[in-house]
Amino acid sequence: MNDACELCGKVFDKAVWKNDLAYLIDASDEIFPCFLRLVCRRHVKEMSDLSVEEQEGFWRMLRAVEETIIRRLQAHKVNYAQFGNMVPHLHWHVIARWRDDAFFPESPWGRQQREADPEVSRSRLALKDEMLEELVCKLEEA
Amino acid sequence: MNDACELCGKVFDKAVWKNDLAYLIDASDEIFPCFLRLVCRRHVKEMSDLSVEEQEGFWRMLRAVEETIIRRLQAHKVNYAQFGNMVPHLHWHVIARWRDDAFFPESPWGRQQREADPEVSRSRLALKDEMLEELVCKLEEA
Repeated sequence: MNDACELCGKVFDKAVWKNDLAYLIDASDEIFPCFLRLVCRRHVKEMSDLSVEEQEGFWRMLRAVEETIIRRLQAHKVNYAQFGNMVPHLHWHVIARWRDDAFFPESPWGRQQREADPEVSRSRLALKDEMLEELVCKLEEA
Repeated sequence: MNDACELCGKVFDKAVWKNDLAYLIDASDEIFPCFLRLVCRRHVKEMSDLSVEEQEGFWRMLRAVEETIIRRLQAHKVNYAQFGNMVPHLHWHVIARWRDDAFFPESPWGRQQREADPEVSRSRLALKDEMLEELVCKLEEA
């Protein structure tokens, strides 16, 4: 834990799930109805600051997230990003994308293309909540 | 191979290196002096369209890229992204970031923050070229 780090202090309470290695955070909203984060518990900056075994643990968790998103949400694409330029504490974003979403085909860090349809967003947010229950079970096995 | 896919037809000639699973593409320029891509050889959309063994091969290659960037380029951060919204053919971007680069701390898909210093860019591009020689050896072992 690093007292100066925004993520070290903040993520614990908001975690949907956790294991020894990572917290799962649900950062979804109307714009991105399935926007998940896997945040490393330890304060490290890069994947290679982890042991190879820990890195493999991250990949298995990311695989469980992707597979569950694809199976449950009928998303058109899954997006991954790991930047950490602003908050240099290792965290992965995994985002479900649909062709009619507010930013498609731009990345979530690009320009918004259209307004999100509130009804579609609500329905996808509900599906995401259901999906999270299955995902937590999958992550326990990952 | 998918005839309608931009990546299927394009990447082969520009590859710095390849194995059975992926091409390594050097997409660096003055703005991002080390911007690399690992493009899947097969036309698939998502990581989970690959076998678990193939996915593990991708992770090992990504690890080799990150480790070599960190060791050789004194980069302040390594950025990963896998979107594929515009070209739905699996490819990973791995980008070395420096605090004084043109977009830092924004993602490479965000807003440019400043002009790149041409001299600094030239020096980093030269270091990146040297690094690629080592990286190709590392990838052979990955």
